[in-house]
Amino acid sequence: MNSYKTIGIIGGMGPLATYDLAEKILNNTVASCDQDNIPVLIDCNTRIADRTAAILHGGEDPRPEMKKSAKRLEEAGANVLIMACNTAHYFYDSVCEDLKIPVLHMPRLTAQLILEMGVKKAGVLATDGTCRSGVYGDALKEKGIEPVYPSAEKQEIIMSLIYDHVKAGKMDFSDLDIDGVISEMKGKGAEILILGCTELPMAFDIIGETGIPSIDPTDVLARAAVSFAGAPLK
Amino acid sequence: MNSYKTIGIIGGMGPLATYDLAEKILNNTVASCDQDNIPVLIDCNTRIADRTAAILHGGEDPRPEMKKSAKRLEEAGANVLIMACNTAHYFYDSVCEDLKIPVLHMPRLTAQLILEMGVKKAGVLATDGTCRSGVYGDALKEKGIEPVYPSAEKQEIIMSLIYDHVKAGKMDFSDLDIDGVISEMKGKGAEILILGCTELPMAFDIIGETGIPSIDPTDVLARAAVSFAGAPLK
Repeated sequence: MNSYKTIGIIGGMGPLATYDLAEKILNNTVASCDQDNIPVLIDCNTRIADRTAAILHGGEDPRPEMKKSAKRLEEAGANVLIMACNTAHYFYDSVCEDLKIPVLHMPRLTAQLILEMGVKKAGVLATDGTCRSGVYGDALKEKGIEPVYPSAEKQEIIMSLIYDHVKAGKMDFSDLDIDGVISEMKGKGAEILILGCTELPMAFDIIGETGIPSIDPTDVLARAAVSFAGAPLK
Repeated sequence: MNSYKTIGIIGGMGPLATYDLAEKILNNTVASCDQDNIPVLIDCNTRIADRTAAILHGGEDPRPEMKKSAKRLEEAGANVLIMACNTAHYFYDSVCEDLKIPVLHMPRLTAQLILEMGVKKAGVLATDGTCRSGVYGDALKEKGIEPVYPSAEKQEIIMSLIYDHVKAGKMDFSDLDIDGVISEMKGKGAEILILGCTELPMAFDIIGETGIPSIDPTDVLARAAVSFAGAPLK
């Protein structure tokens, strides 16, 4: 029996991204049998209200259900909590209230890693909601890194990539000027691209080489959780 | 906010099969946004000992940790429990003890569906452990359906398909006489094949048309759980 700490996932934001994060924990752990893996508790709480709607349009407050999930996971035995949703980190402080266990912060862990790479300017590719929530901008500025965003015109391409293509299962991006987005980000001095939406790493796997490195925050979070749990990283 | 019942998954047997079952719940639910999905609690308990080793070789008893997971999920608010592992159903009665909520039984649900199809003889393709545990044989006989198993020689091919190929990521099966297994099962009068190991539906997706229908018990279980939760089935 392994002695790893138990990871809790506040999930449902969305459900598929939740299971993708759980699989990234498996993929990043050295294990030769079921029992070598880290115990994980998941609360796929589909009663959590839409985060973007709450931030941008005054929609229903997602915090009460997020806090319920956090408490439920703590009581069930989780030693650390994580969330698969980038935008959800806008509500990080509320989630942490009343908890005795830590919650790992995906944008801050990503910013820390980027700092260690010696990067000064990082491009943020994400939904309008995540960009405007400032979760990446704030995390980067705290580390002295300058965030770089696409222009309004290029941001529309990113939104179409996320919503009209990946979320809709249309993985042919030939109608989108992705090269134009990349050129603009390079022109603004971005040394790395943060794929700050759970759909983007999937798209960029297909897009392939862009001439600029990119970073998948979900993977960064999964690796930090594996380390926290005390398991060997792959 | 949806009013669906909460599904609990006793997981970790193995971890990937756990998340595959969770994704099958998503794939079988009519939903147009995160909030249309069923709340799901998952205890990916990698401290549960190997089921096959316990049944065939007197290995460590998996029941104490299985019961702990069941209780933990009930206390966290699950209204019904399910398990992704076929072999785990050998310990079904122990898991149900002390619970106030039901546990859906994958082999019995599969047998019920086969009965409704009017099938009299069903082929069981699974690991040695699952076959010898009798979980499918017993479930089928309870419904008056005769279970049909491969000969020792053909069973070796199924074991190689599961362990040397799918579990090892080698998805080229040209060295295996799958046709021979199918012919034998047909010769013995099997009208349908139960893919009673979580690796087999993946293999049969690649193998393609065999001239005999097959059934994926994980999908049957996912659909039963969606119905129990009160959500619209896709």
